[in-house]
Amino acid sequence: MIKTVEWTNEGVRMIDQRLLPTEEKYLTLRSYEEVAEAIKKMVVRGAPAIGVSAAFGLALGAKQSVGTSVADLEDDFGYMCEVMSKTRPTAVNLFWAIERMRAAFNREKARTQNTEEIKANLVTEALNIFQEDIESNRSIGHFGAPLIPEGATVLTHCNAGALATAGDYGTALGVVRAARDAGKRVAVIADETRPFLQGLRLTAWELAKDEIPVTVITDGMAGHVMKGGKVDCVVVGADRIAANGDTANKIGTYMVAVLAKENNVPFYVAAPITTLDLSLSSGDQIPIEERDTREVTHIGSHQLGPDGVAVQNPAFDVTPNEFIAAIITDRGVARAPYVASLKALAGAKKVGV
Amino acid sequence: MIKTVEWTNEGVRMIDQRLLPTEEKYLTLRSYEEVAEAIKKMVVRGAPAIGVSAAFGLALGAKQSVGTSVADLEDDFGYMCEVMSKTRPTAVNLFWAIERMRAAFNREKARTQNTEEIKANLVTEALNIFQEDIESNRSIGHFGAPLIPEGATVLTHCNAGALATAGDYGTALGVVRAARDAGKRVAVIADETRPFLQGLRLTAWELAKDEIPVTVITDGMAGHVMKGGKVDCVVVGADRIAANGDTANKIGTYMVAVLAKENNVPFYVAAPITTLDLSLSSGDQIPIEERDTREVTHIGSHQLGPDGVAVQNPAFDVTPNEFIAAIITDRGVARAPYVASLKALAGAKKVGV
Repeated sequence: MIKTVEWTNEGVRMIDQRLLPTEEKYLTLRSYEEVAEAIKKMVVRGAPAIGVSAAFGLALGAKQSVGTSVADLEDDFGYMCEVMSKTRPTAVNLFWAIERMRAAFNREKARTQNTEEIKANLVTEALNIFQEDIESNRSIGHFGAPLIPEGATVLTHCNAGALATAGDYGTALGVVRAARDAGKRVAVIADETRPFLQGLRLTAWELAKDEIPVTVITDGMAGHVMKGGKVDCVVVGADRIAANGDTANKIGTYMVAVLAKENNVPFYVAAPITTLDLSLSSGDQIPIEERDTREVTHIGSHQLGPDGVAVQNPAFDVTPNEFIAAIITDRGVARAPYVASLKALAGAKKVGV
Repeated sequence: MIKTVEWTNEGVRMIDQRLLPTEEKYLTLRSYEEVAEAIKKMVVRGAPAIGVSAAFGLALGAKQSVGTSVADLEDDFGYMCEVMSKTRPTAVNLFWAIERMRAAFNREKARTQNTEEIKANLVTEALNIFQEDIESNRSIGHFGAPLIPEGATVLTHCNAGALATAGDYGTALGVVRAARDAGKRVAVIADETRPFLQGLRLTAWELAKDEIPVTVITDGMAGHVMKGGKVDCVVVGADRIAANGDTANKIGTYMVAVLAKENNVPFYVAAPITTLDLSLSSGDQIPIEERDTREVTHIGSHQLGPDGVAVQNPAFDVTPNEFIAAIITDRGVARAPYVASLKALAGAKKVGV
């Protein structure tokens, strides 16, 4: 099992995803600031993994707080939540995890005046978030696997695998793994996913480790392979899903969705219910992060483009619900009309598998 | 003016497009084999530039032939044409240039038994091809410029500029340059165009030199910027156009065309009439080159993907005619139905501008 992010006695341990696949290096982050910085710099990425990391970071920050009264600890904790919420704007799982940790804090505060007890229970809450994420991926896999035909080739964009979550199954790749574990033959075509190359670097690496056949293409080849009849379905993850099903995901996902529709290839989104943001009626309201242009113009220290070239680097795009055949969640599969189906799943009780 | 490829007394001189934009280095190729190798390795690329380079290479090879009889020279020349025709399979301009040089040889052979005269006239023929390419780009610009609205932002894929032709204007970028020279404000969004990064490396470089505003995006962002209303039209080049208008061009062009249609953005192809292959009834018959996977997995010596990862690397895709609003040639603008309009242009006399 890939250990994307873990709680240890020394701090929050994570695999440095900037260095994969040529280097497999684990960092131990020893303060909440270091965790926030790791999220910002994409040492860890993927909406669910960001949520889990933020929860661990807040638990670590609380544990290290020198505040001796609950009021002091609350001040510290509130500040940490602020810092953590400013790391990345698009993935709603980050804000969900922060809110859940904040709720845990308030629950504890109402229960006890013992700061050590509060700190210990914040660690427990973060560990629960971690464990639930792994279980949620298994549920996504359970609900999604029947959508994958025997012998299918699944195209995916970016990395929505073990490395995008607490570990283990992943979301989009959880569906692939569950299909494989159900005895189906399944192969993956991974878009390389510029600029950060999550497909070439991460998806290819984790699927090879898992012995699931994977072929990498550049993003511009996705249409060509679909037109050639080589893709049976598309499964991608999500960073935020609006109430109407519009889905923010890694830049290029909208391109894949449009090409899938043109070529009659079903396009599925796989994400835990925590990726749902019912406060937004449509995807137009989802904030899209603009990242450093250097991610496009350089690979490491290697300069690719001309000096001073203008670059746009939006990290996400929004796929309108009309392109989405189904949204596979840990509580079941939502289909159009999404306003009703997603609301129903959000209100439903969590299903164990 | 950018000197993409030139005839010199020492050999065929070309700018090494693998090194741009961080290094501006010119190579002098001193044999036809070196020219063939340069085409294969993409020192020079772009359908019209490949055609001009092949013509120069054959002129150079003939000039250096030690055959003292016309029969010996003919043997040598025939072999050189074979070698040259095996460099790259998709761009029809290569085969067109070889056939034109072969026709020149046959014409000369019928006229004279003086090998030196034949050799000299093959050099003249190659220089004519070079000069006609530059003029043809100006004609493409002339016919295409009216399609570009004042204040337009033009999205382009790959590089169909000076660097893809004998120099000067280019095809797709020739349309942009002609619009600018007609007094219009015009800006370009360039897809970076993985894996070879012609957009980021070459289009950005030559437009910056020309002071035309250019912004680079990754290929996966093309849909996002069109959906955001930031693109007024798309203009791309072509490597081969079938009789029905289906167009082979750099991998990812089909993606751009589908996204343009979805977003009601007109999608134009700009190419000289020599890019037309009336022997093929549809794009399905166009051979698509598959290149070394290392182009995807590495940048220079920098390894990006995991060891041994499977990769597909088709260098071109085919855009069906239904996605193409117009094909801008050096003889006029063709519109659907293309079978009729392209045939008419192919039969028409060349128009000077």
